[in-house]
Amino acid sequence: MTQTLSALAIAEKLLACESITPAVGPVFDCLAGLLEPLGFTCHRFIVGEAPDGPVENCFAIRKGPEGSPHFAFAGHLDVVPPGEGWTSAPFLPERRGELLYGRGAVDMKGSIASMIAAVQDIPAEAGTISFIITGDEEGPAIYGTRALIDLIRQLGEEPDLCLVGEPTSVNRLGDMMKVGRRGSVNIFLEVEGVQGHVAYPHLADNPVPKLVAMLAELDGLHLDDGTEWFQPSNLEITEIEVGNPAHNVIPAKAKARISIRFNDLHTGKALGDQVIAIAKKHGGTAQPVISGESFLTPPGDFSQMIADAVEAELGVVPEASTSGGTSDARFLKDLCPVIEFGLVNATMHKRDEAVAVDDLEALARIYRRVTLAALA
Amino acid sequence: MTQTLSALAIAEKLLACESITPAVGPVFDCLAGLLEPLGFTCHRFIVGEAPDGPVENCFAIRKGPEGSPHFAFAGHLDVVPPGEGWTSAPFLPERRGELLYGRGAVDMKGSIASMIAAVQDIPAEAGTISFIITGDEEGPAIYGTRALIDLIRQLGEEPDLCLVGEPTSVNRLGDMMKVGRRGSVNIFLEVEGVQGHVAYPHLADNPVPKLVAMLAELDGLHLDDGTEWFQPSNLEITEIEVGNPAHNVIPAKAKARISIRFNDLHTGKALGDQVIAIAKKHGGTAQPVISGESFLTPPGDFSQMIADAVEAELGVVPEASTSGGTSDARFLKDLCPVIEFGLVNATMHKRDEAVAVDDLEALARIYRRVTLAALA
Ligand SMILES: [Zn+2]
Ligand SMILES: [Zn+2]
Repeated sequence: MTQTLSALAIAEKLLACESITPAVGPVFDCLAGLLEPLGFTCHRFIVGEAPDGPVENCFAIRKGPEGSPHFAFAGHLDVVPPGEGWTSAPFLPERRGELLYGRGAVDMKGSIASMIAAVQDIPAEAGTISFIITGDEEGPAIYGTRALIDLIRQLGEEPDLCLVGEPTSVNRLGDMMKVGRRGSVNIFLEVEGVQGHVAYPHLADNPVPKLVAMLAELDGLHLDDGTEWFQPSNLEITEIEVGNPAHNVIPAKAKARISIRFNDLHTGKALGDQVIAIAKKHGGTAQPVISGESFLTPPGDFSQMIADAVEAELGVVPEASTSGGTSDARFLKDLCPVIEFGLVNATMHKRDEAVAVDDLEALARIYRRVTLAALA
Repeated sequence: MTQTLSALAIAEKLLACESITPAVGPVFDCLAGLLEPLGFTCHRFIVGEAPDGPVENCFAIRKGPEGSPHFAFAGHLDVVPPGEGWTSAPFLPERRGELLYGRGAVDMKGSIASMIAAVQDIPAEAGTISFIITGDEEGPAIYGTRALIDLIRQLGEEPDLCLVGEPTSVNRLGDMMKVGRRGSVNIFLEVEGVQGHVAYPHLADNPVPKLVAMLAELDGLHLDDGTEWFQPSNLEITEIEVGNPAHNVIPAKAKARISIRFNDLHTGKALGDQVIAIAKKHGGTAQPVISGESFLTPPGDFSQMIADAVEAELGVVPEASTSGGTSDARFLKDLCPVIEFGLVNATMHKRDEAVAVDDLEALARIYRRVTLAALA
């Protein structure tokens, strides 16, 4: 065994590696350099081509005794571009007072640092532990966690439980975990008509009124009233484009785009089919692109392990939420029950992203308790 | 009196002067050179600046005895750009068989040639005759006929009747005149909202559903069933623009444009106010831009003069129509009753624009009959 490192010390190493999405190379060298001395075998691989790649991924596993439980941490080492206006350099982590600054401090190199710190002194005999780490979560996520899942299945190393370290805390560390996320589907609508002059409408076929009627019906859809764990599904019209600069011309084509965030009462496929039928009724077409299905790990044993660990360390009980955007849990749910729990997300994707040093160490202790409970 | 010219000879002179809209200079020199020897006083003036100008206009008048009637011809010497693919040079008029080719042959230097030929041997004692000729009908028409009307009013020389020489004939010379035109108003619609993320719609205010509801109501408006002389008014949605490339963003603004062609049951102002009220109801705004009000010279004495002249020369009775786009008659109607009658419009605005030589001479004889009837 090597000398034990603080979560802070590990976070500083990871934050110093520039890794704007999609990430390859140094930040994964750093990860492997931290996990291999702890007995982990790192399966690293690079996939994809520009513009969505290349992407590096790493599945690191340390096996426990034959037949022992398998607990997985999941997360991403890529970060969103830093943008302008930082007080210190975004890839030179700097501690000022109680805070550690750097791009990825909370989303989510800080969480990964706490994961590594958490497992340092857990012996291999306790059970199998793995890290499912991608370099493509903030980007299109085409070559990231999906490729890792394929590898894990090929290796036959599916975990029993998986904790994703996304920054789920809102006002203070531990106040929220995510037991589910809504699914997401974007649908591209189009109506073709016949171009003409506004003075001779009988010689033209204006596609715009058909699109307007289609969108009015879609906007009036009542998808559901929400469920025990989910808020109601929601449809937004995000774009309409006709592209006709001429005031006296009836356009030949009209296009629109909608975005649906849906709960576990729906699938992306079923919603897409419903919209295709409505589009057809109004003389148009619809092309659904499913970003991810919903997932739900109904509150139970796993969420209780996390809640117990948080309460023991911080004295608060995390709310089990399903709000917000999508995460890679939409893919990992196909492997095993998955819950997200991590740092405070107030500064994620913003300039001067920062994490409280106390939170890093507290999160490491919470992750350690969850790991031990999951392997018990 | 100078020697009498054929309408063909006059047309060849006018067609040889390049005069792409807005027109100034040589083509007006040519016009003045034809009218002044006939006793006309030419009030020529240039107005406007690029890009809508400069524009030349000419009000040519030959006064009859004190108190005699005043008959006016109106038209334009500017032409639309020739475009590609002509068989002969568009500004070198060329006779091939029965046809004379050149840009403006029917729209409407040919008609102006017939007007000039028509009045050559009418003595000044018959009454007052004038020509209201602009160089800006095919363009924005800001500095054209409107400026001529201002001048005519300053001179106190308002005509009693006005014949516009637009190419109104469809299948053969004499089959149609225009006793009215619909008005036209374009209205710019806008709804402002609050931008946000589709995963957090409660923090945003999507303007698109409001615009869609507004457009659905506008599309459903029943403006009228037409009148004795007009087809029903018609509203077309010609453009919608949201301009939001991001799939997960609720846009901040949505815009649209509609075009209404309306008959004499409406005014542009009243329609604009109606749309403004509907836009407001849906949380948006509307900005009307009136291109022209409708006009109608109800069939009666004037249309009968034209019909009689056509029937006497060609044996057909022209249909009194109000169909099609706008013309400068929308302005001239404020001076006196106005009707449009001219050549066959099949080749107007197209390559190889051409007029039948027989039609030029027949139209001159028809215009002569109308002039004499109007002055009688
Ligand atoms: Zn993240
Ligand atoms: Zn014309």
